[in-house]
Amino acid sequence: MRLATLRDGSKDGRLVLVSSDGLRYAFSPVATLQAALEQWDAVAPELLAMVQFPEPLAGQDIAAPMPRAWQWLDGSAFQSHGDLMCQVLGMDPIETAVPLMYQGVSDKFYGPLDDVKFPDETLGIDFEGEFGVIVDAVPMGTKAADAMDHIKLVVQINDWSLRALAGPEMKTGFGWVQAKPPCSMAPFAITPDELGTDWRNGRVCLNLNVAWNGEHFGSANGEPMGHGFHELVAHAARTRDLVAGTVIGSGTVSNANFREVGSSCIAERRGIEVIDQGEPKTNFMKFGDTVHMEAVDADGRAPFGKIAQEVVRG
Amino acid sequence: MRLATLRDGSKDGRLVLVSSDGLRYAFSPVATLQAALEQWDAVAPELLAMVQFPEPLAGQDIAAPMPRAWQWLDGSAFQSHGDLMCQVLGMDPIETAVPLMYQGVSDKFYGPLDDVKFPDETLGIDFEGEFGVIVDAVPMGTKAADAMDHIKLVVQINDWSLRALAGPEMKTGFGWVQAKPPCSMAPFAITPDELGTDWRNGRVCLNLNVAWNGEHFGSANGEPMGHGFHELVAHAARTRDLVAGTVIGSGTVSNANFREVGSSCIAERRGIEVIDQGEPKTNFMKFGDTVHMEAVDADGRAPFGKIAQEVVRG
Repeated sequence: MRLATLRDGSKDGRLVLVSSDGLRYAFSPVATLQAALEQWDAVAPELLAMVQFPEPLAGQDIAAPMPRAWQWLDGSAFQSHGDLMCQVLGMDPIETAVPLMYQGVSDKFYGPLDDVKFPDETLGIDFEGEFGVIVDAVPMGTKAADAMDHIKLVVQINDWSLRALAGPEMKTGFGWVQAKPPCSMAPFAITPDELGTDWRNGRVCLNLNVAWNGEHFGSANGEPMGHGFHELVAHAARTRDLVAGTVIGSGTVSNANFREVGSSCIAERRGIEVIDQGEPKTNFMKFGDTVHMEAVDADGRAPFGKIAQEVVRG
Repeated sequence: MRLATLRDGSKDGRLVLVSSDGLRYAFSPVATLQAALEQWDAVAPELLAMVQFPEPLAGQDIAAPMPRAWQWLDGSAFQSHGDLMCQVLGMDPIETAVPLMYQGVSDKFYGPLDDVKFPDETLGIDFEGEFGVIVDAVPMGTKAADAMDHIKLVVQINDWSLRALAGPEMKTGFGWVQAKPPCSMAPFAITPDELGTDWRNGRVCLNLNVAWNGEHFGSANGEPMGHGFHELVAHAARTRDLVAGTVIGSGTVSNANFREVGSSCIAERRGIEVIDQGEPKTNFMKFGDTVHMEAVDADGRAPFGKIAQEVVRG
């Protein structure tokens, strides 16, 4: 099942069910994805029973599947990314047995084709391609094995980052505020079964193709997460209930063979340049730059659709 | 103007206007505080014009004024608190010219009289008495001088903390997730003018009386913030728009003469014990413990009402 949200002037938009070829849609009986997630067990069968897609999906104003969420928690589950970033920031590797996770701003997710505004080009504007999941209500103390059943939808995310602000904020120990403005989402939120065997052990085992200004930048695979999404959900729920509609991210998709497959963020490429050449050679994004992100399966199908955005002055 | 939210079965409750003596109320023409903040310039005059308070306020099920918010950002604006905490955690003082701030969970604020559930008594359950503000929509890049006008309401908050988890999370640089479950709010959100001259330079210049299990624990004053709330709002808005209803906190109220006035959290008292006696003597909270918090003015009036909560097993 693929779900999308069309802009209709309201803050949460209008939920639609999208045909498996991504070309047509039907209005969901429940107006918003938030509302659907709050009563998922009742709504999902209704959606599954829909077989007519009367409207062509072409040119509509598409929002993020969740245009806003009550909570957004982002992990950093790819070890090769974390190691590179620590090396570049001159930090010791972060020693922790539990997943790394920060609380991010959730009151807005950009749609897949929205321009993304920043106040200043010198802040180190960077993209971060990642995957995420959306859960129904998860009670405090839910264990990882049980958390898997709470994962109702999978999404593809661009976690915008301002690198010039990230290091100083990280060093305070308080985490990121200014360095992490709102993220973007690809058009389709999909049920895990849509991924078939590419959904394994709580991981999205697809290549995430990233292009910057039209040039291929990376196609890292989502499988090598150090913790699966069910473990990230359980981590998040250790001391709090998670409300339905909570979004949990993987962190930047990254593979140990990054020199072959490329990266999902500029910072990582710069890290490799520091290691290989002593200093970073690649600059961050400028106003007018574009980034495209699209996870593809072995058949070349893009289950989440495509993120295609331009960075603009805010 | 004093506002409160009564529980009515809905997630955001029912907004009411409370008489200046806190004894009676009237239903607001707009149902929720979130909705009121989204159209504050139109709604505030309507509320101000209301002079009849037909209902006695006694025994109702009172929620937090904002039972949930789209964003909660908490500062740490009291230098004496930060210095003590670094000393206790064995960390160097945090060097930063800008305000310290973390993104917290916002999908729930406990009401002032709610039991507060935690999974485990060994996690270092602690209260943190603080003040906060609620803004209308603040555009990205708003400067501190302009941010003052966006502060529509002032609140009193208990920022629940799990200290056993706080240090390790802080050391990752990712900030707090497990260590910061949902906060609580005192019953009344008030316009700054309700504070009269106790609202100065973006600060709530009142003593915050804190009692633990019925015993006086502290009465630090809110004036010595290193950054005023308008500066915290501007900091938060540097790289993002703030939606109406964003809540921004001061961090634990703390004064340099903490040995005289006491503290607003247990960790700080333990820090003083470490300095004075070589080790902490005071334990954290146990299930069944209570905490009361009430800011009072020179006339003994409590403009925010009182937080009175019990810690229970989740």
